[in-house]
Amino acid sequence: MDGSILIVTNSDPATRNALGVEFYGGMADALGRAGDDDGIAALVVTGAGGFFCSGGNINALRQRLDMDEAGRRQGVDMLHKMARAMRACPKPIIAAVEGGAAGAGMGLALACDLIVAAEDAYFAMSYVRVGLTPDGGTTSYLAQALPRQLVNEFAMTGKRVPATRMHQLGIVNELTQEGAALGRAVILARELAEGPAQSLAAIKSLADSGQHASLDEQLDAEAAFMTRALGGPEGREGITAFLAKRKPKFR
Amino acid sequence: MDGSILIVTNSDPATRNALGVEFYGGMADALGRAGDDDGIAALVVTGAGGFFCSGGNINALRQRLDMDEAGRRQGVDMLHKMARAMRACPKPIIAAVEGGAAGAGMGLALACDLIVAAEDAYFAMSYVRVGLTPDGGTTSYLAQALPRQLVNEFAMTGKRVPATRMHQLGIVNELTQEGAALGRAVILARELAEGPAQSLAAIKSLADSGQHASLDEQLDAEAAFMTRALGGPEGREGITAFLAKRKPKFR
Amino acid sequence: MDGSILIVTNSDPATRNALGVEFYGGMADALGRAGDDDGIAALVVTGAGGFFCSGGNINALRQRLDMDEAGRRQGVDMLHKMARAMRACPKPIIAAVEGGAAGAGMGLALACDLIVAAEDAYFAMSYVRVGLTPDGGTTSYLAQALPRQLVNEFAMTGKRVPATRMHQLGIVNELTQEGAALGRAVILARELAEGPAQSLAAIKSLADSGQHASLDEQLDAEAAFMTRALGGPEGREGITAFLAKRKPKFR
Repeated sequence: MDGSILIVTNSDPATRNALGVEFYGGMADALGRAGDDDGIAALVVTGAGGFFCSGGNINALRQRLDMDEAGRRQGVDMLHKMARAMRACPKPIIAAVEGGAAGAGMGLALACDLIVAAEDAYFAMSYVRVGLTPDGGTTSYLAQALPRQLVNEFAMTGKRVPATRMHQLGIVNELTQEGAALGRAVILARELAEGPAQSLAAIKSLADSGQHASLDEQLDAEAAFMTRALGGPEGREGITAFLAKRKPKFR
Repeated sequence: MDGSILIVTNSDPATRNALGVEFYGGMADALGRAGDDDGIAALVVTGAGGFFCSGGNINALRQRLDMDEAGRRQGVDMLHKMARAMRACPKPIIAAVEGGAAGAGMGLALACDLIVAAEDAYFAMSYVRVGLTPDGGTTSYLAQALPRQLVNEFAMTGKRVPATRMHQLGIVNELTQEGAALGRAVILARELAEGPAQSLAAIKSLADSGQHASLDEQLDAEAAFMTRALGGPEGREGITAFLAKRKPKFR
Repeated sequence: MDGSILIVTNSDPATRNALGVEFYGGMADALGRAGDDDGIAALVVTGAGGFFCSGGNINALRQRLDMDEAGRRQGVDMLHKMARAMRACPKPIIAAVEGGAAGAGMGLALACDLIVAAEDAYFAMSYVRVGLTPDGGTTSYLAQALPRQLVNEFAMTGKRVPATRMHQLGIVNELTQEGAALGRAVILARELAEGPAQSLAAIKSLADSGQHASLDEQLDAEAAFMTRALGGPEGREGITAFLAKRKPKFR
């Protein structure tokens, strides 16, 4: 907890922060608190030891090979429950990526609403290299953002895509020097923490629904949010402050 | 009216061309004429005084704060009626952007089919800065065009996005020197005005439907348009002219 | 046939490889073989004589002008049957583009899963120049990949879009020197031919479905593929090889 920012750190340096039951529990706890507590404005997700996340734990995956279908599905179900909860969370979630984000670790970064990455970091859909298939929503996030040819390239080769390329494509929002991603993500989160919470939640919802809604449907969603905003305290404060030429105070 | 080009100028320099009842009426009139009159080939939308559009009128918004829900919704309903009519209009609509396009003014630009912008112009989803939420279709247009992280960045910060960045992303079609956007937009409109009207209307429709249709559905739509084009005067003229090695004369 | 790579060459230099009954037959045959034969790992589609494909045959189109609706629709139906079969094929299809890809030839390139292009090649939606409308799925592929303004620009002007721009946009995966596209495409195909066939088929399917599925739907599709992969020989070989620090042998 840092001011009203909740920082979730994945810390298992021995596995370069592979995803596991402990991390899923910590994220579920953080997302639950962020949903309930008006004092939490934004989340920052990062990894310890200069690496974001190496994805699924290879030893856990090894054990799953011999399980029945329900057992094999268990790990991916936990991962996908987290992906759904991150999207449903009304607070902005910022990824701070150092080193690399591989496999489901790339999915964890892409599930965030904003991404800050060190300029020497990489993203990799490593699944194909071990005979597996993408999960964690990676193909959803990428297919919504990029041409099909580029999604195929990333997923079929499993190559390391430099953070600089992801920035050019608009998926990484900001590049920093090595070691500075977390600091920058926290500054960004603090800026959002001064903004209007209901507006930010509406924006997160609209940025999601707009990927699938027709223009008509999305206009209806926008109109409903705008009508509510004009009738609520945030709109009143924002417009009053603007007319008074002073900085608005939303929280 | 300039040849067969209809130029719609938003002119209220005191508010940097904020949107209001008068502009909505002018646009509705222009779109109605463009729909009915075969002599009108394309529309150009611009703003007077070196600025495209500052979005919603802040004083009108101030008055809406104290209205009931129906009253608060009135402004956004007018805006969204215009957005729907611009999409339904069978003629190409070109935005000529100088200075800035902010809030619903950014929505007005993005509702156009092509955008010419001065290289020092900016686009800004300013809503969050006054405690409001995006409208005018801005989140639909951006979520269809850009990664979710970039939509969140633009909408959650309300930052000024340079026209040069919008050009790199493919949303702005052409950059011009300051002061030259309208002139260039008119030249582009005149080029389209020499083209086949039915083909251009079909393209506008397909560029819209292709954002949501499955490949199968879109192939069916393309096949229907192509079958009609081959049986109509534009296809006959185009193919005949090509074989005769002369320039086609579509109008 | 080159190793386990099937190369489909469109060869009718007199028409710069316009699409015709012979090519449709050859592609249908190749796609049928690729679907049935586990020995075929990937397809490469290219054109003879330094040009990819000029699109519809202008003389055939000329004859269609005088046909009834069913006759006019026949050509586009053959083209669209090919587009659907290319998407349904479980093997990766790589386009090797030299010279140009125009009209339905651009659609043929965009129907491929990966695109290698010579740096001086171009792509053009030429339809509007002859009074026709886009087909072959071009508007579907582009509307899924690019902002609406850019789709309109390409389709309404019919301009030549340089391969370098298509590479920047992420639609062309790799640029080569003039004359080197086919060689590079074959190398890429051979690399894929060493990869896990079931994973690659799953990736092709997910990159397609992810364009339209909701996050929830796509997570379900990813989970089903991952559960299958963990229970199959490719996942076992990949994970075992990784833990043994050896290169996996998938075929």
